[in-house]
Amino acid sequence: MTTSTYSVTGMTCGHCEMSVREEVQEIAGVEGVEVDARSGSLVVTSADAIDDARVLAAVTEAGYTAVRA
Amino acid sequence: MTTSTYSVTGMTCGHCEMSVREEVQEIAGVEGVEVDARSGSLVVTSADAIDDARVLAAVTEAGYTAVRA
Repeated sequence: MTTSTYSVTGMTCGHCEMSVREEVQEIAGVEGVEVDARSGSLVVTSADAIDDARVLAAVTEAGYTAVRA
Repeated sequence: MTTSTYSVTGMTCGHCEMSVREEVQEIAGVEGVEVDARSGSLVVTSADAIDDARVLAAVTEAGYTAVRA
């Protein structure tokens, strides 16, 4: 099990968290997604290491910006 | 045509605006809804005067608080 943490900019509320969660959950191999708008943290759990670029792209798709933490 | 303006507390983003808009649009007689998260303004247009209580209840249903401006 691999846990990857990212910092997301621009989320302000629970709706924003939901948008990010929905996009990241669609990535093949992702088993868990924890998002917190207040701290800007995104924690992705997967069985195997996940490609950061896919996570960052999913966050962009949701309308926000992320970097690997 | 009647225009009623309200001040909404707690909206932070476009998702919040959408939640409020969706609830207020469901009120019978409402013809137009303008919501701005930044200023907290909600402007409701209707052919006849609209019952403030119904608008305030719709905003509450969306998860926010409003008062007549």
